[in-house]
Amino acid sequence: MTRKKRILSGMRPTGHLHLGNLHGALANWIEMQDTYECFYFIADWHALTSDYDDTGNISDYVKNMVIDWLSAGLSHEKSTLFVQSHVKEHAELFLILSMITPVPWLERNPTYKDQIAQLGNKDLSTFGFMGYPVLQAADIIIYKADCVPVGIDQVPHVEITREIARRFNYFYGNIFPEPQAILTKMSKVLGTDRRKMSKSYNNAIFLADSPEEIASSVSKMITDPDRQRKNDPGNPDICNVFDFHKLYSDKSLVDEMNAECRKAGIGCVACKKKMAANLINFLEPIREKRSYYEQRPELVADIIVTGSNKARKIAQQTMEEVRSAMKI
Amino acid sequence: MTRKKRILSGMRPTGHLHLGNLHGALANWIEMQDTYECFYFIADWHALTSDYDDTGNISDYVKNMVIDWLSAGLSHEKSTLFVQSHVKEHAELFLILSMITPVPWLERNPTYKDQIAQLGNKDLSTFGFMGYPVLQAADIIIYKADCVPVGIDQVPHVEITREIARRFNYFYGNIFPEPQAILTKMSKVLGTDRRKMSKSYNNAIFLADSPEEIASSVSKMITDPDRQRKNDPGNPDICNVFDFHKLYSDKSLVDEMNAECRKAGIGCVACKKKMAANLINFLEPIREKRSYYEQRPELVADIIVTGSNKARKIAQQTMEEVRSAMKI
Repeated sequence: MTRKKRILSGMRPTGHLHLGNLHGALANWIEMQDTYECFYFIADWHALTSDYDDTGNISDYVKNMVIDWLSAGLSHEKSTLFVQSHVKEHAELFLILSMITPVPWLERNPTYKDQIAQLGNKDLSTFGFMGYPVLQAADIIIYKADCVPVGIDQVPHVEITREIARRFNYFYGNIFPEPQAILTKMSKVLGTDRRKMSKSYNNAIFLADSPEEIASSVSKMITDPDRQRKNDPGNPDICNVFDFHKLYSDKSLVDEMNAECRKAGIGCVACKKKMAANLINFLEPIREKRSYYEQRPELVADIIVTGSNKARKIAQQTMEEVRSAMKI
Repeated sequence: MTRKKRILSGMRPTGHLHLGNLHGALANWIEMQDTYECFYFIADWHALTSDYDDTGNISDYVKNMVIDWLSAGLSHEKSTLFVQSHVKEHAELFLILSMITPVPWLERNPTYKDQIAQLGNKDLSTFGFMGYPVLQAADIIIYKADCVPVGIDQVPHVEITREIARRFNYFYGNIFPEPQAILTKMSKVLGTDRRKMSKSYNNAIFLADSPEEIASSVSKMITDPDRQRKNDPGNPDICNVFDFHKLYSDKSLVDEMNAECRKAGIGCVACKKKMAANLINFLEPIREKRSYYEQRPELVADIIVTGSNKARKIAQQTMEEVRSAMKI
């Protein structure tokens, strides 16, 4: 039997996870647990690149994210779940890689100037923000990951990681494999206002939402904007609620809603109620597991410590190889 | 009794120490041991900023530098002598400070473009080289040093350290004192060719040189360039050998050389021989202690480990305060 390939991926602890995160990254992560040896980490140091002026919530977000992960189906027995800042070796390798990474590689990083422009209300001209691809490279290669699951927009980061690994190997000997990007399908779940689902747009449905909160969010969802009155026929093809039906309702209900909407046989309010009931149902096991873990903070803390210890052991081993290759 | 003020200073391990280092930084360090609580460290990670492509000698240089320090009069009982890379917390604080340090502060650093220009044969456009004032800031404030002894050219670095400490305190609360620069007298020892004494100019006399090597180096020293023949009167005011006499010969010999040279009563060869004898004499106790430590590598290793453990304890304490202030 050949060894399973190792993958590594992380999330910034920026708040509760929503349906967009679930059907995006998290569903892929859960699926990959059986095929790969998975390392999933909470990138709390990365959260500092943009949120350095307000760090007060980070440790709460970290705990919450672990609970979201476990509730949604990540297994701390199958995978190594850990917190970046609990493995100090990431910082040591970041420092060492920073010495061999040319500044122009970072300035050319396409997301660098993009993000500075996008987050115009924050001062992102920090040294750490410029260097986050170096920290990402350290995160990845310290575990000698074979692959990194990413969306298409993050492929350039994996490319920088490969270049940094190659440069290290060129100077000091062959320590690091060059990780491959695995392109993952992106989430197609839009927010209640039909923009990309995002906490900062205030259009998200969270895994931790109560049934009442879900029902209320769904009732505000934008449907076919051309359907003004209940008697007007609607067009499910451009209706966000119908997209949700396709995710959470069974085929017969999807077909029924499709037909009824087109002939104005059902109004949006009733259609939303049916979908909301199925969405609430779908999230029920996640909510149950969440309440289980919320009542057991020591268990959650223990899962974080155990996973971080496991990760640290591997990271320390790699750092010994690094120091020995560099003779420092 | 008030607590002694704490100072911190470091040297890059770039080879054997020479008379320029001794009469420059090292003499100041030795003198300050009784007045201050001193932390002196070997900046091996800093050595990577310029020597990242050839790290093979660093660990030898580290051992040698400790031997030079102990031989010249630094005391591991009075002071904390340690190696930067043995205290990983420097890397963690470097990472955290990098998140709050604006890139323009680093680009404005006057030595940044200077050094890139000076060391034209090396590619210094690395992220780590740009960030070395951030690493220096971490080195200093992790020990909450009150003061940093520096030459005039390094005052801007202490200023950046103060700004970074201030910015940290502004965001997260008052953890770090702002260190003061203590201006130290610079060495006036020139190399054998009358340029600044420097290993890379090949004009240095090293603490580890044998009497024969010293005699040979002194015999090649440039004296008064206008004194062509032994019968010409010389001018000690512009003679490098006479400057050495003032450091290593007693007053009566200095006066004698001054008078004899001006009336051509002594030739340069004889004058150099007298000076060389005194210089060899002056360095004799250093050579003796060096040979003592060279024969006891375990003792040297133990001194490094003990000092680094002591430093690490303080650094860990500071990092606990840092994490608690940032709530991460």
